[in-house]
Amino acid sequence: MLNQVRIVLVNTTHPGNVGGVARAMKNMGLSDLHLVNPQGYPSAEATARASGADDLLARARVHEDLDAALVGCQLVLGTSARQRTLRWPQHEPRQAAAELLAAARSGPVALLFGRERTGLTNEELDRCHALVNIPANPEYSSLNLAAAAQVLSYELRMTALEGRAAQASAAESGGELPAPHEDVERFYAHLEDTLRVLDFLDPDNPRHLMRRLRRLFGRVRLTINEVNILRGILAHAAKGRKDPAP
Amino acid sequence: MLNQVRIVLVNTTHPGNVGGVARAMKNMGLSDLHLVNPQGYPSAEATARASGADDLLARARVHEDLDAALVGCQLVLGTSARQRTLRWPQHEPRQAAAELLAAARSGPVALLFGRERTGLTNEELDRCHALVNIPANPEYSSLNLAAAAQVLSYELRMTALEGRAAQASAAESGGELPAPHEDVERFYAHLEDTLRVLDFLDPDNPRHLMRRLRRLFGRVRLTINEVNILRGILAHAAKGRKDPAP
Repeated sequence: MLNQVRIVLVNTTHPGNVGGVARAMKNMGLSDLHLVNPQGYPSAEATARASGADDLLARARVHEDLDAALVGCQLVLGTSARQRTLRWPQHEPRQAAAELLAAARSGPVALLFGRERTGLTNEELDRCHALVNIPANPEYSSLNLAAAAQVLSYELRMTALEGRAAQASAAESGGELPAPHEDVERFYAHLEDTLRVLDFLDPDNPRHLMRRLRRLFGRVRLTINEVNILRGILAHAAKGRKDPAP
Repeated sequence: MLNQVRIVLVNTTHPGNVGGVARAMKNMGLSDLHLVNPQGYPSAEATARASGADDLLARARVHEDLDAALVGCQLVLGTSARQRTLRWPQHEPRQAAAELLAAARSGPVALLFGRERTGLTNEELDRCHALVNIPANPEYSSLNLAAAAQVLSYELRMTALEGRAAQASAAESGGELPAPHEDVERFYAHLEDTLRVLDFLDPDNPRHLMRRLRRLFGRVRLTINEVNILRGILAHAAKGRKDPAP
């Protein structure tokens, strides 16, 4: 569905920014770049900043007016740095990404970026169903064009991936198998014995320390390998020590 | 809370990228930039790319080593483009932002960005509690440094604005204060010494075991009290043992 999202740069002033946008798009799996009246383009600077995304630049389509770039699109969103009179609905990037990808199921959609200094004209905004606003620092709100494209492309990719992103976080322990309850309990028993042998555990109040240590290791969700390492350390620590007389 | 998030650039090669990161940070309301051994910095190119964020560059602190940049930090996350063999816990940017801001309630936290070509070394990753991975296009996954900083800064701002900084980890440690970076490093040094004294550490390959143990305790985010307990155990374990002859 990311292939259905058309990124349209309108009248870009600095060709380097076109390259930066191409790189940001390719990094996030987008591929369909359209340029409306780009200034000083094509240029070596655009290619240099595109880095490994020059294939995407080479396939970019150049148009003489915005309407030509929007042919076939059913949903058009325009990025806007500032609040305007409430003529257009405003979305945050995440909501915009969800709307674009929902619409992209049935055909191409477009996301417009205006000129570096002045953005999109009212006539261009008239082509948009809604505006997208990156909620930047009000005291310094103007993002570089490539940076704004990076944020929106990132949200589009995250939205596309979201279905399978949910499962991803399970891999926290690096793919190792978590230790089953009974192994962890044996580790705690071994730890308690060893602390007694080391004369560290207060025999009058053993539970307090063990509870604290359980709380510590309980937060980790130990793996099988980690339990083995920790028990190896305990065995070495106790070696040659005698259990104190009761 | 965004003021508590330290952005740490390690050994950046192109000073222009330092400026690009400063601009991305200021756009998103971040302000605390730290540079570890930046190449060719300060430079006119950094200032030019910072655009209106030169105040943030002027306040940036330059350090000679990473530990100096992390003093006082309770949570350290490292950005990483690729999967590693001995894996650290991996977060997506949104989850990372929630964890950083949750921890930032009680003090400074850090987000590390490595060198443009080679990222962070394993020794630098050892300082991290977890890694952050921007889920990029697998066929073209390397983001420009300023673009990666833009994505993470954006997620931090969105999280801050949404007020959904995870309650997660604050409650996990039972309201106790987390140990700062330098205390945890002293614990690791003590642990390594003790394991050597106990003859548990393989002197031919000390790093492998220590990296595994760092990964284990890194997931816990030790509190100050817990570090004290663990070091008390280490002291008892080493008592009466002699350092083996080299």
